[in-house]
Amino acid sequence: MMEQLKISQVTKKFGRHLILDDVSFTLEPAKIYGLLGRNGAGKSTLLNIISNRIFPTAGSVKLDDQEVNTDQTLGKIFLIGEDNLYYKQVKINQMFDLADAAYGNFDYKNAERMLKRFSLEGTHKFTKLSTGQKTAAKVTLALNVSADYIFLDEPVLGLDANYREVFYQELIKSYQARPRTIVLSTHLIDEIQRLIEHVILINNQQVLVDTDVEELLRKAYEISGPVKLVDQYTEGLNVLSTEDLGNIRTAHVFDKLPEGRVIPDQVQIGHTDLQHLFIYLTNEGGDKND
Amino acid sequence: MMEQLKISQVTKKFGRHLILDDVSFTLEPAKIYGLLGRNGAGKSTLLNIISNRIFPTAGSVKLDDQEVNTDQTLGKIFLIGEDNLYYKQVKINQMFDLADAAYGNFDYKNAERMLKRFSLEGTHKFTKLSTGQKTAAKVTLALNVSADYIFLDEPVLGLDANYREVFYQELIKSYQARPRTIVLSTHLIDEIQRLIEHVILINNQQVLVDTDVEELLRKAYEISGPVKLVDQYTEGLNVLSTEDLGNIRTAHVFDKLPEGRVIPDQVQIGHTDLQHLFIYLTNEGGDKND
Repeated sequence: MMEQLKISQVTKKFGRHLILDDVSFTLEPAKIYGLLGRNGAGKSTLLNIISNRIFPTAGSVKLDDQEVNTDQTLGKIFLIGEDNLYYKQVKINQMFDLADAAYGNFDYKNAERMLKRFSLEGTHKFTKLSTGQKTAAKVTLALNVSADYIFLDEPVLGLDANYREVFYQELIKSYQARPRTIVLSTHLIDEIQRLIEHVILINNQQVLVDTDVEELLRKAYEISGPVKLVDQYTEGLNVLSTEDLGNIRTAHVFDKLPEGRVIPDQVQIGHTDLQHLFIYLTNEGGDKND
Repeated sequence: MMEQLKISQVTKKFGRHLILDDVSFTLEPAKIYGLLGRNGAGKSTLLNIISNRIFPTAGSVKLDDQEVNTDQTLGKIFLIGEDNLYYKQVKINQMFDLADAAYGNFDYKNAERMLKRFSLEGTHKFTKLSTGQKTAAKVTLALNVSADYIFLDEPVLGLDANYREVFYQELIKSYQARPRTIVLSTHLIDEIQRLIEHVILINNQQVLVDTDVEELLRKAYEISGPVKLVDQYTEGLNVLSTEDLGNIRTAHVFDKLPEGRVIPDQVQIGHTDLQHLFIYLTNEGGDKND
């Protein structure tokens, strides 16, 4: 039976810098998540805390009711981070062996097949690879480790469009063959929108969004038309930002639309995609473009 | 008066590895280019040759008729590469000073404004920055250097969606204020499609495409419908790949559609975007997904 992973009131300070402020959320078994946030939002710090590489200033990480700091609990959590912790001479094959030793049941056969798709060989030395190749080696490792919670920090960094497609295909295939929780932390939100079921969005050190993607997008609208009519229609709604082009205003709304309020003929309502919703939700202090 | 930059029959071998094979193309003044290619296609090597950091095994790079290896010619070419050549203690401000010393007329005022938009400060040390912050510092440097040819290798690596938008906005603004040639080498093709005028695509060590974007996309079609009808309609055309879903086939065509050939009612014709066209053009040996 798989357990929930509970992050409770996690706060992290580096010296006087507050990186994470009272962050709580729960990850369910066998679900694909997007962990989103601006550059510097503290996502990588959070991932390092979850996998017990660094310690929180306050708060806890638990698998059901057990603190994640024992061999048994840590054996269920695997993180591929942004940093490259491997020593100079390590070959990709040896990375697989290390994961097999730590977690058991490494899927060598599938990993070999994936390496081929990425045009890599197990005998390649990790530190000699390009940024994109390093990413390919790391995601191949991560998708073939035997763990209930897999965290992927920047899983497509430097990958070309074809290899990104390969990764997305392999992710789905791997999940279908062996459902477990996979958390993707990436800036290419457009491309993962169709893959993830649930979004955790960290902003200003805190959890801003913890919602199923479908539910989230159901409240994300672009409402455009003549300024006056758009303002009338969106009155009292949560408008994240507006753009004007001549007399035509587009309002980016994050709210339930009011039932019964009449939509004027000249006003058009469309849906916002996840990447744009992210931009509107996390842009600070309006447009800094001046 | 600005000159053309001519890359003529450039070949590069590293030992017995052929990296570039007889590559020729001409860059026009004051135009925005996309330099595209798979991971490992040799784009970075080509950029290093163009900016005289490494030497080709054969071939030449000329500004009009002058070899690019003099102070005068090199002073017109600026490259921000993937590698981070800066020594440990250098601050962003000092990077600006170095560029000003080498190229003159560095636009400090605009660079300061851009740094603010990226939430960076000139006193930050470059090597202490995250991947995304390094990218932000590098593009700020590049867009404010005074040179006729600016090459940006991976200009959005690690940047979040909001900062990528900032970069695209600043690129357009900078180009409008001071038209010059800007070459973007990136894997986020979707996002630069609307910015670039012309595509150079390197594949299998050679130039596969050297065409205006508009012209390129005019030949990129997705033709779908019942297998038999799609096959009939696309007979003799350059079909890059096909996908079947039950009895429905989608053919990705890169060709002029035949005039006068009747399009059956059940067949739909749509356009392919640049990123997908890139994937179809550069995928080797069909689908390796097995």
